[in-house]
Amino acid sequence: MKKDQIALKVVETMMAQDYFSQWLGIQVESVSPGNCRLSLTLRKEMLNGFGIAHGGIAFSLADSALAFASNSHNRKSLVIETSMSFTAPAREGDVLTAEAEEVNLTGRTGIYYVTVTDQENKKLAVFKGIVFRKPDHWFPDAE
Amino acid sequence: MKKDQIALKVVETMMAQDYFSQWLGIQVESVSPGNCRLSLTLRKEMLNGFGIAHGGIAFSLADSALAFASNSHNRKSLVIETSMSFTAPAREGDVLTAEAEEVNLTGRTGIYYVTVTDQENKKLAVFKGIVFRKPDHWFPDAE
Amino acid sequence: MKKDQIALKVVETMMAQDYFSQWLGIQVESVSPGNCRLSLTLRKEMLNGFGIAHGGIAFSLADSALAFASNSHNRKSLVIETSMSFTAPAREGDVLTAEAEEVNLTGRTGIYYVTVTDQENKKLAVFKGIVFRKPDHWFPDAE
Amino acid sequence: MKKDQIALKVVETMMAQDYFSQWLGIQVESVSPGNCRLSLTLRKEMLNGFGIAHGGIAFSLADSALAFASNSHNRKSLVIETSMSFTAPAREGDVLTAEAEEVNLTGRTGIYYVTVTDQENKKLAVFKGIVFRKPDHWFPDAE
Repeated sequence: MKKDQIALKVVETMMAQDYFSQWLGIQVESVSPGNCRLSLTLRKEMLNGFGIAHGGIAFSLADSALAFASNSHNRKSLVIETSMSFTAPAREGDVLTAEAEEVNLTGRTGIYYVTVTDQENKKLAVFKGIVFRKPDHWFPDAE
Repeated sequence: MKKDQIALKVVETMMAQDYFSQWLGIQVESVSPGNCRLSLTLRKEMLNGFGIAHGGIAFSLADSALAFASNSHNRKSLVIETSMSFTAPAREGDVLTAEAEEVNLTGRTGIYYVTVTDQENKKLAVFKGIVFRKPDHWFPDAE
Repeated sequence: MKKDQIALKVVETMMAQDYFSQWLGIQVESVSPGNCRLSLTLRKEMLNGFGIAHGGIAFSLADSALAFASNSHNRKSLVIETSMSFTAPAREGDVLTAEAEEVNLTGRTGIYYVTVTDQENKKLAVFKGIVFRKPDHWFPDAE
Repeated sequence: MKKDQIALKVVETMMAQDYFSQWLGIQVESVSPGNCRLSLTLRKEMLNGFGIAHGGIAFSLADSALAFASNSHNRKSLVIETSMSFTAPAREGDVLTAEAEEVNLTGRTGIYYVTVTDQENKKLAVFKGIVFRKPDHWFPDAE
């Protein structure tokens, strides 16, 4: 199988069991090894006490993008550290997109930047995440 | 009004409009100026593709604890930066508790540590968050 | 004065008083509004107990790049938060380069990514920094 | 050998080869397994372009405290991630103390909080660091 196909198969498998990403209404926009783009539409039940998106929504979208991008190499990878800066608020009906790009990859860890934007391409949050790469593969026979 | 009463009134007001914290089933365990303890019970729809709690759940609980702890001083405070380290997985039915403590407070910013544990007091995640303190008060007449 | 000239003048002014950057032997490779590239050569006195560069050296180089990049807009800007991931060790004689790029800028804060590489373009560390922008200018008459 | 003695022996061994911590004038105030307290006095050559301590000085002190605290368990441990919030400036002649405390320890990683204060116990910076624990020991025969 080609690397792009494996990446997509891993993400489809993860997404099928990822009940929280499903509840968020996450759409997989694109996947390639080490990269991933996801989107969701902000619903009323995602707002906080200020009437804007709860910080956990942008984080969860970015965290899913990180998980999918890092696991797309067919190696099971667990998030160990994240750092998120919030730059602008989002409101009900806004469409949030998270784009994960790989910054560094070793045998043991991977580092990713994720940028969350709205439908007007305004930056809502920037995120740095680190994963620990386990030796196990999602599809041992795929390589 | 006493500071403890104001703190509780702010958190009750925020919680009443915080639809996402409500969806998470967050319980306010305790509040005092600069501190807050929250809990939730992990439901199936909070799990990720590994069958464990999505990272966004522990983050959202910690983020709400941060928001409540910092706003409890009666000054409107917005989260600008967070950093979260994940130390152990959580599973369906686990009860997560987030405890926020104030580390530093100036006129302009506040820094908080939040620790997320399970029902056996196992550390699941540790979190550092920074808020920007706006000049506006939640209850201008309360002081 | 043009924006590029102001940026350079700010960095030259800061560097002339920045005794620690001078001790580090920092060279200013390039400056433009919001961006900055610096380098230094690792000396024996910059090593730690493992015989590799002390983490504080890559951090200090990145922190100077952040300070110069953010102040280059002619607004006095103070670092309030940093996050650094270390990806590979550096050794005596290695030439380290830090490249700062602006990720987000508002009236109040700026966010920057800084990447630290060695002479073979290997990534040694990646860094995210946030500054608070004061109202004061470095050269009030320059604009 | 007792655990406290091993911890001290590891830190003495590291410090003897740590040329940068020596240049900083770092004093080891106390060491026990997982904890460490260090201090230094701010010299003119540690200042930045604002006439206050360069951010790299507080970071380097905290990073050394993190390295010593984590290696004190007799397991070689490498810093992989740090996050530092700066809360107040320090000036020439100030005495900075960094206190590292262990927040979480697994077979593979350790998480530490480090607080940097001045001689009046004012908080200058708060720091969260993560180390990767290698299987090798500093003193294999000590246990």
